[in-house]
Amino acid sequence: STLVMRRMPEFEMEAYDAATGHYTTISSEQLKGKWGVICFYPADFTFVCPTEIAAMNSQLDKLNELGVVVVPISGDTKFSHKRFVETEPLLEGLKLTMGADNTGNVARKFGVWIEQEGVALRGRFIINPDGVVVAEETVADSVGRSVMELIRQLEAWQHAYSTGEVCPANWHKGKKT
Amino acid sequence: STLVMRRMPEFEMEAYDAATGHYTTISSEQLKGKWGVICFYPADFTFVCPTEIAAMNSQLDKLNELGVVVVPISGDTKFSHKRFVETEPLLEGLKLTMGADNTGNVARKFGVWIEQEGVALRGRFIINPDGVVVAEETVADSVGRSVMELIRQLEAWQHAYSTGEVCPANWHKGKKT
Amino acid sequence: STLVMRRMPEFEMEAYDAATGHYTTISSEQLKGKWGVICFYPADFTFVCPTEIAAMNSQLDKLNELGVVVVPISGDTKFSHKRFVETEPLLEGLKLTMGADNTGNVARKFGVWIEQEGVALRGRFIINPDGVVVAEETVADSVGRSVMELIRQLEAWQHAYSTGEVCPANWHKGKKT
Amino acid sequence: STLVMRRMPEFEMEAYDAATGHYTTISSEQLKGKWGVICFYPADFTFVCPTEIAAMNSQLDKLNELGVVVVPISGDTKFSHKRFVETEPLLEGLKLTMGADNTGNVARKFGVWIEQEGVALRGRFIINPDGVVVAEETVADSVGRSVMELIRQLEAWQHAYSTGEVCPANWHKGKKT
Amino acid sequence: STLVMRRMPEFEMEAYDAATGHYTTISSEQLKGKWGVICFYPADFTFVCPTEIAAMNSQLDKLNELGVVVVPISGDTKFSHKRFVETEPLLEGLKLTMGADNTGNVARKFGVWIEQEGVALRGRFIINPDGVVVAEETVADSVGRSVMELIRQLEAWQHAYSTGEVCPANWHKGKKT
Amino acid sequence: STLVMRRMPEFEMEAYDAATGHYTTISSEQLKGKWGVICFYPADFTFVCPTEIAAMNSQLDKLNELGVVVVPISGDTKFSHKRFVETEPLLEGLKLTMGADNTGNVARKFGVWIEQEGVALRGRFIINPDGVVVAEETVADSVGRSVMELIRQLEAWQHAYSTGEVCPANWHKGKKT
Amino acid sequence: STLVMRRMPEFEMEAYDAATGHYTTISSEQLKGKWGVICFYPADFTFVCPTEIAAMNSQLDKLNELGVVVVPISGDTKFSHKRFVETEPLLEGLKLTMGADNTGNVARKFGVWIEQEGVALRGRFIINPDGVVVAEETVADSVGRSVMELIRQLEAWQHAYSTGEVCPANWHKGKKT
Amino acid sequence: STLVMRRMPEFEMEAYDAATGHYTTISSEQLKGKWGVICFYPADFTFVCPTEIAAMNSQLDKLNELGVVVVPISGDTKFSHKRFVETEPLLEGLKLTMGADNTGNVARKFGVWIEQEGVALRGRFIINPDGVVVAEETVADSVGRSVMELIRQLEAWQHAYSTGEVCPANWHKGKKT
Amino acid sequence: STLVMRRMPEFEMEAYDAATGHYTTISSEQLKGKWGVICFYPADFTFVCPTEIAAMNSQLDKLNELGVVVVPISGDTKFSHKRFVETEPLLEGLKLTMGADNTGNVARKFGVWIEQEGVALRGRFIINPDGVVVAEETVADSVGRSVMELIRQLEAWQHAYSTGEVCPANWHKGKKT
Amino acid sequence: STLVMRRMPEFEMEAYDAATGHYTTISSEQLKGKWGVICFYPADFTFVCPTEIAAMNSQLDKLNELGVVVVPISGDTKFSHKRFVETEPLLEGLKLTMGADNTGNVARKFGVWIEQEGVALRGRFIINPDGVVVAEETVADSVGRSVMELIRQLEAWQHAYSTGEVCPANWHKGKKT
Repeated sequence: STLVMRRMPEFEMEAYDAATGHYTTISSEQLKGKWGVICFYPADFTFVCPTEIAAMNSQLDKLNELGVVVVPISGDTKFSHKRFVETEPLLEGLKLTMGADNTGNVARKFGVWIEQEGVALRGRFIINPDGVVVAEETVADSVGRSVMELIRQLEAWQHAYSTGEVCPANWHKGKKT
Repeated sequence: STLVMRRMPEFEMEAYDAATGHYTTISSEQLKGKWGVICFYPADFTFVCPTEIAAMNSQLDKLNELGVVVVPISGDTKFSHKRFVETEPLLEGLKLTMGADNTGNVARKFGVWIEQEGVALRGRFIINPDGVVVAEETVADSVGRSVMELIRQLEAWQHAYSTGEVCPANWHKGKKT
Repeated sequence: STLVMRRMPEFEMEAYDAATGHYTTISSEQLKGKWGVICFYPADFTFVCPTEIAAMNSQLDKLNELGVVVVPISGDTKFSHKRFVETEPLLEGLKLTMGADNTGNVARKFGVWIEQEGVALRGRFIINPDGVVVAEETVADSVGRSVMELIRQLEAWQHAYSTGEVCPANWHKGKKT
Repeated sequence: STLVMRRMPEFEMEAYDAATGHYTTISSEQLKGKWGVICFYPADFTFVCPTEIAAMNSQLDKLNELGVVVVPISGDTKFSHKRFVETEPLLEGLKLTMGADNTGNVARKFGVWIEQEGVALRGRFIINPDGVVVAEETVADSVGRSVMELIRQLEAWQHAYSTGEVCPANWHKGKKT
Repeated sequence: STLVMRRMPEFEMEAYDAATGHYTTISSEQLKGKWGVICFYPADFTFVCPTEIAAMNSQLDKLNELGVVVVPISGDTKFSHKRFVETEPLLEGLKLTMGADNTGNVARKFGVWIEQEGVALRGRFIINPDGVVVAEETVADSVGRSVMELIRQLEAWQHAYSTGEVCPANWHKGKKT
Repeated sequence: STLVMRRMPEFEMEAYDAATGHYTTISSEQLKGKWGVICFYPADFTFVCPTEIAAMNSQLDKLNELGVVVVPISGDTKFSHKRFVETEPLLEGLKLTMGADNTGNVARKFGVWIEQEGVALRGRFIINPDGVVVAEETVADSVGRSVMELIRQLEAWQHAYSTGEVCPANWHKGKKT
Repeated sequence: STLVMRRMPEFEMEAYDAATGHYTTISSEQLKGKWGVICFYPADFTFVCPTEIAAMNSQLDKLNELGVVVVPISGDTKFSHKRFVETEPLLEGLKLTMGADNTGNVARKFGVWIEQEGVALRGRFIINPDGVVVAEETVADSVGRSVMELIRQLEAWQHAYSTGEVCPANWHKGKKT
Repeated sequence: STLVMRRMPEFEMEAYDAATGHYTTISSEQLKGKWGVICFYPADFTFVCPTEIAAMNSQLDKLNELGVVVVPISGDTKFSHKRFVETEPLLEGLKLTMGADNTGNVARKFGVWIEQEGVALRGRFIINPDGVVVAEETVADSVGRSVMELIRQLEAWQHAYSTGEVCPANWHKGKKT
Repeated sequence: STLVMRRMPEFEMEAYDAATGHYTTISSEQLKGKWGVICFYPADFTFVCPTEIAAMNSQLDKLNELGVVVVPISGDTKFSHKRFVETEPLLEGLKLTMGADNTGNVARKFGVWIEQEGVALRGRFIINPDGVVVAEETVADSVGRSVMELIRQLEAWQHAYSTGEVCPANWHKGKKT
Repeated sequence: STLVMRRMPEFEMEAYDAATGHYTTISSEQLKGKWGVICFYPADFTFVCPTEIAAMNSQLDKLNELGVVVVPISGDTKFSHKRFVETEPLLEGLKLTMGADNTGNVARKFGVWIEQEGVALRGRFIINPDGVVVAEETVADSVGRSVMELIRQLEAWQHAYSTGEVCPANWHKGKKT
């Protein structure tokens, strides 16, 4: 079953902090009290993946303004993440901390690990400051997700969260609900 | 776990065909060979729900042009669906066939039935002509989903499906991939 | 096995109070110390159902006089119940609180939920002030139940309950036992 | 759960035929293709019981006219039934065949056997010619059931069965449905 | 296995006291400290049964003199026992309290209940003042048991019990052991 | 439970034929088509035991006339039986075949083996020509059984078996039933 | 597995003391602190058995001198043992206490009970003063055991026990080890 | 339980043939149709062990004359057995084939393997030409077994086997049985 | 337990062929009939790992001459292996096919997957042409393995395999065995 | 799975101390705080085995200098080890304590016991002072292991242990890491 409306699973894993170039760890604990976007992708060094991460990175000012923590995660090691960022032109200037889920355990808990292939599906989860998953979007490998739609939803969720109002379909920030 | 990249569950249920005003049935069998959008919502006669269904209905020409079958489903009976369409101003002119999942079994198979409340979560599934779920988007009750993003993804999936190409993030039809 | 001569199952569910037009809840707890009639019917917006509820409503003065709480219940939501009462001419002036058993759990506990159809059977249960089920009458969908026979039995049960006497068949209030 | 809308349980037991004064057997097989009323009562030689059986017997012309087979059943032996009919003034002229369920197995199958007391509850089941239970009415020991209501329901069921129409509450034969 | 040389099973049941004409209860507790004869028979209102009970009744002075409590038991109700005694000429003047084992549980504990027929076998058990079963005699339905042999054994048991002597076969009271 | 009205258990064991002084075997197979009396006793070389066997032996002409096979059985070996007959004055002239149940298996099957003592109870079983146990009489160690009562019952059983009549209590051959 | 080098099983049984002619009991408890020889044989009143017991009896002075308790055991009762000693010429003057293992439980614990025959194998166990089995010799029915070899081993064991020395094969008392 | 009167367990193991100085195998199959003595001892290179094997070797002419195959077995390897024979003065001239039970499986099957020590107990088994174990003698480590008693028993067994006679205790060849 | 002397587990996985720069697959099937070295290492882009692979690569002429297939395997994807080879100076000129065990299933089968870390231990397995594992060497992360010792062992194994001779410790090719 | 990076199994066994010629015991407890080499070999008195033990013995000065405890272990008894050392020319001057694993339990715990043969594989385990297994090398029977490679690894491990540095492949003491 979906994780939506349930508490985010507890996790902790090694990571590579692209902003500082250092190895670190990232955990569900660090997301407590913040809006989070957990964003799984299949593997380092593939075509679609850096496009999506780069797109999120390009909206980092907006996401920071909204107070949102974005965590890209794949089944690669932190060593791989480091080389990926260092050698992939599209990722130049990346500021995100990338989760190294090389056991697959974090993706398993979010229901997006493909056991027979040993990689994660593209699954994107929005977490509210109470640690509850409020939205999940998972797509098969060949089509990317829209970062603009992500930001639209985050604004709508933050509005609903702070006002208790309900947002109709196609709501955009500033539109009268 | 997610249904993405797996075969759509088999289902059959009673339904109300708003185009003809008659009771009918709808099944997974009827979606074979077509692109489908299975769209769960919590209940008839609530505020957010008709907004989303109306938004999909307003894009029906576009969706028909893409050859996409849209099926809204809730845990209400077909009797309830009929009265809902007849009495809700926002649904005037609705042409969709609405699934009556009053056992909750269809939503259970898609992982979006909330047992303790007896209603479905807002879960939207895109099914390709091979009957495979290629995308799932599920959101908690208070925020609606974007129909435009749905159409963007459908176009991208159809493009990828017919060409075998992979679409990067934020792809729109006509943009060079 | 039948529930007769056993304690009424514990339950709590959302409801629509047709007397005030507000949403509320109804529970087995609220029936303690009173005579109750739990009356399941299949679905809102169908033909037979409002007839029976209307018939009970038309005898409401008599039932109030006997101190009996009548609770109609179906598998519809409280939203559906509200629209049902608002739009069904036969239910004009309804004063009952209608239980919204959209999980089916209450009907399951009373043994009258049809799993494969997701609706309740027509089952009527008389509960005495000690919370014990003293009578059950369940009928298939196509034949309604008699409200007059219900009132006859209630009077006979109240008589037996207060005097400890046993009532022969066909007993009517005032007839010598 | 209730037996309503399910097939009548298969049974066979010894019996006393009060019309001929002979011992015989009675089985579910003998009810096939006919309307039947299976009527359990606690025990021979008690006060309420002969009243109810006598009331049904007094309506035997009507019941025969409707083609209905009435089978009173208790946990007593056929020897007991014979002496009961022979010595109880109220049962003079009885024409029914009385089932001797001294193992309790038939009442168990209908869900009305009280294990700790070794007697049946007062449960009345209407069976249609297809062998399906269409109505169940079970009451605690101290209040009898109405034979007139039974006849009203039988007429309504036969009408619904032959015409496929649905009968509203309080329907009586000849009233416009 | 046999109950002989084991403690009598614990039991309690409703009963009819033929000496006073009142309903009562009888239990294993009431036999403590006395010699008892528990005597099962198949059913009231049959041919062999009253013969045997009458034979024991006719020796009641002798049995009283020996301080023996005789309890006839069948699967009939206390209501049935009352009518049996009132209407059976052979039982005129009966002074025994008759156990109503309509659940069959007492006969089950003594190993003489025939499940598929719902009646008791003819089983006669002698209980000593310590509550121990010292003899069992069980016969199939068609042959009765000898009351004289019962009395012979009771005298022999009481002699052995009080003296600790062992009685050879065919011993009669007064004969030299 | 009692063995009465069930088929005699199958058995085969070593034996001592006192008529010839030879060792042999005895089995349930040898009783087929005949009336049989299986008579267990605790042990060779004790006081009560030879009394009872001697009593049966003294009635051997009568028992032969009735066509009854009598089999005394204890947990002793055939060697022990031989010495018992040879050295016990009361058994002089014994003509019976004595079963050597030194495994206790035959007594176990008849429910009369006392596991903790390794001896049989005094249990006497009457078997009809169909191999069905029609009567069981089991007594604790200190009181013997009546051979005359045995013969009375055998005659009654044979009468009932050949005529299908039922014998009342205290019936003796020649008395009008 | 063998009992050698394990503690002797705990046991208690009835017995016949041939020295006094009285019934008694014998238990493992009575062997504590002494050298014991537990000697099973198949049955009283057979050919080989008294030979072996007689042979041990003839060496009783020697065995007493060594402080060894010899216990012959078979599956016969104490009554049988008494008559066996009284009537068997070879056993005249027997001074041993004979165990009556008529349940077979003692032989079962020593692994020498033949279930399907209900007799013990010829098994001889030497027990040291600590209750440990130091030697087992078991033979099939047709060959007897040597009492002289038994005494040789007992002397060797007592020597080894008191000195801690190890005895080579064929050691005899007094020979240099 | 003991192996006596059961078939010898099936086994096969590596071995050292001291007569030829070669490695070989030995199995239960090779004993079929012959008298065999399976003789377990704890370990090569210990004090008591060669004494016993040497004693058997010294009687080899007698044992050959009786047609008996003697197999000494320990948990040592065949390499160890070879060096043992080559370096142990007492074993000079040894002609036996020594079983190398270094898995312990053969001793386990004969019930004489001590799991916690990884060595065999001193257990000696006589096998008849039908492969049946007719005698077992097992002793704790500190006392050896008598080879003369072994030969006495073998002669007795062979006599009994060929004549069907039963040998009393202390029987020696030539003595009248 | 160790895999040594057992058949190599069956496996198949994606791989990167560094000789051609193409993606491919590698399986146990491809090793049949050849000498193989399966060499697990923890992760791409770490310090020790390329040293070891480079060392094997530098001896590739020698290994080819011996007809040995060397397969380095880690839990990284084939995409990662490609970038690793392309960007790591030490791996310049690498000719090996590198297994991509990103499910961890191959390392699990060889017993060298650390579940809680999601990486492989350094385990090196030599496989003979019959598919049997003849040697395993596994070391903790901080110490590398000797390629010269590997080649020494391979030569020794090939010698033993072709001649059936046994090699003593420290054997080097050409030294007299 | 491999033992590498896990704690060494706990063990204790009998042993032969070749330095003193006395029997003793050796346990995992005695290795605590020291570097250890546990070295299994198949059996005493075979060809390859003394070569390897002798090779280690010849490097004893070096190993002592490194503070390494070497424990050779086979499934032979301590008696066998003693004779092996005393009679094998290659082992002259041996100073090691040899473990007697005749139950096979120690080899089982290290995963190198071959159950069906009852001997150990050639498995060599390096244990660090924390009791952790840091390396395992196991080879099939026909090829020996290199003592020089062992010493190279021990030096590398000790260096890594004391400095925390990581050693690349082919590292030798003194080479720059």
